[in-house]
Amino acid sequence: MVSVGAKGTAATAGTAARVRRVGVVGLGLIGGSLALRLVARGFDVVAWNHTPRPYGSAERAGVRCAASLADLVAAAPDVIVLCNPLRAMPEILRALAALAEDGALDESVTLTDVGSVKGMVRDQVKAAGLADRYVGAHPMAGNEKSGWDAADPALYDDALWAVTVDEGTSYRRFLDVAELITAGVGDRMIVLDDGTHDRAAALISHMPHVVATALANELTESDDRNVAVALSAGCWRDMTRVALTDPDRTRAMVEEDAANVEALLRSMADRLVAVADLLRGEREQAAESRDADAHTPQAMLDFFADADPFRAYKAAQPGHLAAGDHPRVTVMVSADGWRGELLASARRGEHIVRIDAERTFTALVRSAL
Amino acid sequence: MVSVGAKGTAATAGTAARVRRVGVVGLGLIGGSLALRLVARGFDVVAWNHTPRPYGSAERAGVRCAASLADLVAAAPDVIVLCNPLRAMPEILRALAALAEDGALDESVTLTDVGSVKGMVRDQVKAAGLADRYVGAHPMAGNEKSGWDAADPALYDDALWAVTVDEGTSYRRFLDVAELITAGVGDRMIVLDDGTHDRAAALISHMPHVVATALANELTESDDRNVAVALSAGCWRDMTRVALTDPDRTRAMVEEDAANVEALLRSMADRLVAVADLLRGEREQAAESRDADAHTPQAMLDFFADADPFRAYKAAQPGHLAAGDHPRVTVMVSADGWRGELLASARRGEHIVRIDAERTFTALVRSAL
Repeated sequence: MVSVGAKGTAATAGTAARVRRVGVVGLGLIGGSLALRLVARGFDVVAWNHTPRPYGSAERAGVRCAASLADLVAAAPDVIVLCNPLRAMPEILRALAALAEDGALDESVTLTDVGSVKGMVRDQVKAAGLADRYVGAHPMAGNEKSGWDAADPALYDDALWAVTVDEGTSYRRFLDVAELITAGVGDRMIVLDDGTHDRAAALISHMPHVVATALANELTESDDRNVAVALSAGCWRDMTRVALTDPDRTRAMVEEDAANVEALLRSMADRLVAVADLLRGEREQAAESRDADAHTPQAMLDFFADADPFRAYKAAQPGHLAAGDHPRVTVMVSADGWRGELLASARRGEHIVRIDAERTFTALVRSAL
Repeated sequence: MVSVGAKGTAATAGTAARVRRVGVVGLGLIGGSLALRLVARGFDVVAWNHTPRPYGSAERAGVRCAASLADLVAAAPDVIVLCNPLRAMPEILRALAALAEDGALDESVTLTDVGSVKGMVRDQVKAAGLADRYVGAHPMAGNEKSGWDAADPALYDDALWAVTVDEGTSYRRFLDVAELITAGVGDRMIVLDDGTHDRAAALISHMPHVVATALANELTESDDRNVAVALSAGCWRDMTRVALTDPDRTRAMVEEDAANVEALLRSMADRLVAVADLLRGEREQAAESRDADAHTPQAMLDFFADADPFRAYKAAQPGHLAAGDHPRVTVMVSADGWRGELLASARRGEHIVRIDAERTFTALVRSAL
């Protein structure tokens, strides 16, 4: 199905684009949308999917489709992006490792992925012996849908990607992926280590999904459930929305980032018990003093004030500030320290949008907490 | 400022309307919107506010404004609705008790309120010696705004009210309030005891506000906060939205329903720790068995399945089913058992929309969990 034709004309960045042909493994919502986006931006895209069901539609849209993973590799992509479900990752990595062993997968080909956890994927990449060529990536893109039929290149409009690196990551391969994301897909990126990524993802998504489910369970197990749901309004609707999504997918996501989610759940439980203890103390004090106005302790005031930096951050967010309206900075990195220097940039709230030269990046400055 | 004129022509229900003149104490968002709504529906509305600031605008809109609480009482309303902030409640109740003592506040006048907690208000009403004439009420209406300038009669469009009663509640006074809400304001209502109301409100609003704040604190106290907020999407936005509202108001709301919130926070903490323990168990088992695929225990599957009735309830909710499209039932109550019979109706998911006769109601049937 694949014919190794002339390489496409990739969109060019400030540096000469090294990546012109991209292999996409998996044509679901994320992979399919990425393939369509890259085709629209002038890349030569070759894709393989575990079933050829989307191939007719994909080929009409300009995506070359490979009959097998080996055929995709034979098409000699510069970068292969693994967009398969995480549960299929070990098997696909073993197949790629075998192709590398045979010499079919050239040493120059860079491997990346779009998985929502990075530590587990890197462990699997290492187990397959492919760590040398790997750079982790995770686009903040998606919606409630799934599958090729929902694929839409606009899914990547102004999206932020996390790119994860470790001590073994080759700077050349990092640039391949960084260029693909910025000049190629037209998106923003921040550079992290796997641990920072997975802790942050647990904090703003994986752990809250468990909290939302626990809230829903508090309702379903209450004798007052029909009264409570009748009285519920926006607060309840918003705080339980993610409990309505596919529970198997949520459970898998939580289990894939288990250590971080576990620690955050214990921390959240401690916070809730601390407030419960303060409320009990206030009631006891009010009962003792026969004073209807309970005295609010400083710790209770502190609990509510501790969220002030987040309130200030949200208040400072412009509704829809165009990318061009953010201040820009130049981020220069050293040959030895680039990983830590780019992580520090991410921690300052900078989003890289362009590679200007070998070690010089342009970043948008977002407000920080 | 008040002239005791001819009574207005109130909208009529299935029964002859007993309530034609309504006193509204407090012209903030909730009280101001109620006053405007009642004027629009043909009631004679007399209002008192702790400052006359809104009076010019209110009088132009048809609301008669009283120079003092005594003047409002002198206008001889059939029902007085306390829409003042809860912190002002004890003082206003003492003033009303003094007016009752003097004979200025007639025994026939029914007292109700719109407070978001019912047990505490009833305790204050009892302390003021006004329990005989009191029926609790709480409209599920409101938005992010406050004050007279934000008042809008549309705030009560298709709103649900909780009406709370206890063993001492007069059936006649209950009907006054029920009729005011259904035929008068044009809304739905459910009838509860204070405890059920306050437990339900803690479950779907007060406790979740604490959870949202704890989530925000988890972010603000994290070293990864700027990375995490950069990666955050809809899940985080929705689950922390209510943490952005006025923290003093949230704290007061939580403290007013302290016992219920305390119990629910401990229950939530237990749920989160249980999931944390399950995640630890899964990791230990995976490490021992050297099996990358951790075996998910039944308890973890159960945690995610326990929310299924809520998922089914939400899936069964029509997007915007018009009131007329819901099935209707007739709810008949006995002279002795009406409180329990109406509570049972609420627990079945029925919303009362009309008083057909002395002890016969029409209710819409909402889907139940």
